[in-house]
Amino acid sequence: MSVHYKLTVEYDGTAFAGFQVQANARTVQGELEAALQRLNRNQPVRLRGAGRTDAGVHAIGQVVDFWLDWRHEDARLVQALNAILPHDVAVRDIARVPESFHSRYSARSRSYRYTIWNRAVRRPLVARWSLHEPRRLDAEAMHTAVQMLLGTHDFASFGRPTQGESTVRHMMRAQVWRDGDWVYVDLEANAFLYRMVRRIVGTLLIIGRGEAPPVWMQDVLAARRPDAAGATAPPHGLCLMAVRYAEDETEEQGPLTSVGAQESES
Amino acid sequence: MSVHYKLTVEYDGTAFAGFQVQANARTVQGELEAALQRLNRNQPVRLRGAGRTDAGVHAIGQVVDFWLDWRHEDARLVQALNAILPHDVAVRDIARVPESFHSRYSARSRSYRYTIWNRAVRRPLVARWSLHEPRRLDAEAMHTAVQMLLGTHDFASFGRPTQGESTVRHMMRAQVWRDGDWVYVDLEANAFLYRMVRRIVGTLLIIGRGEAPPVWMQDVLAARRPDAAGATAPPHGLCLMAVRYAEDETEEQGPLTSVGAQESES
Repeated sequence: MSVHYKLTVEYDGTAFAGFQVQANARTVQGELEAALQRLNRNQPVRLRGAGRTDAGVHAIGQVVDFWLDWRHEDARLVQALNAILPHDVAVRDIARVPESFHSRYSARSRSYRYTIWNRAVRRPLVARWSLHEPRRLDAEAMHTAVQMLLGTHDFASFGRPTQGESTVRHMMRAQVWRDGDWVYVDLEANAFLYRMVRRIVGTLLIIGRGEAPPVWMQDVLAARRPDAAGATAPPHGLCLMAVRYAEDETEEQGPLTSVGAQESES
Repeated sequence: MSVHYKLTVEYDGTAFAGFQVQANARTVQGELEAALQRLNRNQPVRLRGAGRTDAGVHAIGQVVDFWLDWRHEDARLVQALNAILPHDVAVRDIARVPESFHSRYSARSRSYRYTIWNRAVRRPLVARWSLHEPRRLDAEAMHTAVQMLLGTHDFASFGRPTQGESTVRHMMRAQVWRDGDWVYVDLEANAFLYRMVRRIVGTLLIIGRGEAPPVWMQDVLAARRPDAAGATAPPHGLCLMAVRYAEDETEEQGPLTSVGAQESES
């Protein structure tokens, strides 16, 4: 009998043409579906993802769901998938979900983090998942600006919808903060338009360099024209941190830590 | 007129056949010397490195020195080198040093960190610079064991000398500590034998898994036979953090931080 599963997935987006399956391109969905097929007597398994991350964008807490006839413990399914999956994608967690659950449509919010290494010299060991900005950014000005995006707005200046629907979104968290030479942009919204996070970050970078005042963000938002915002920031600084659902308010994944850093929550 | 420079260098060791120059292999020294040659009217520049890190081993604070006829500001030399160097190696800092300075022979100590992700499921975003150990490690037992290495000892059980010299080394710092699902092994010694850190870590992993008591480290050390220690831990968990010199007691580099982690010193 098929069970409806939800997985939390982490990937290094560097070598992927994005999350969503495409012909003739290596995608996260493609790798996950291929692995599931091997565990399903070679019958295809179709999965649904919460966020269609772009080429080069990373994820710590992407969520997918699918049905599978699995006769062992759930933890064994995680082990089996991680043994099959390539080195740059892995399953972090598993849960059984109701029939009605849908990774994309049941999601209450997505949280993204954009990471900026803000010092003159670049750092090879962090370059895969951070943007190098050699000019000193004014993180406080950026924070002032980004808070103008809180609440329900028409975000047409920052992206187009993926399926012709509305460009109105609800931003529930928006902050920019500095920790030494690192600057983080944290955004949480019910959903995001195509490239919306990266266009917001591109706009914030202009403000952070002092080339426009924080209040310019208000003008960009009000314009509702796709050419109003700053350039799209590169994908490698972006990471899908968590997807939240009504059923589960504790979905956030632990932060990514590293050589020489103790973990502590922001 | 030639100036004697010292550089602090960071690299992602994944795609290098180690630090030291070799025929027909991509090395950190080779890339640095090629970049310096371009800035020296295409005349070869020979440099000396503090630690001969192995293939796959990373560095945040490798130190090199060389002489160069450079007529601009020192900061411009860093910029020029970082513009030429490939994405996986970069110069972090520059200083002028006395004629007698030698990266390798003037060094008072080297500090290494070995990073272990200690949870059942692997993590693609940290896999380049951490060892995945799915079995829960007893970090306290490992710490008890590693402290037996403090002081001056014959470390013949953990490695061979690079040039037929003595196998006696002085270990001035040795600690294992856990932070959530991360386990760190920090070692500082006047110098290390070939693969010594990785052999110590291999021995600590056996103790951490409970397959031998902490006091076994004493037996391994006392044996003074190369086959006494545990297996060599893989290179990608290892990072050369800093090299210290008598002239400069403040050489330690800031820790590597990342997506979702605030920095704080251990």
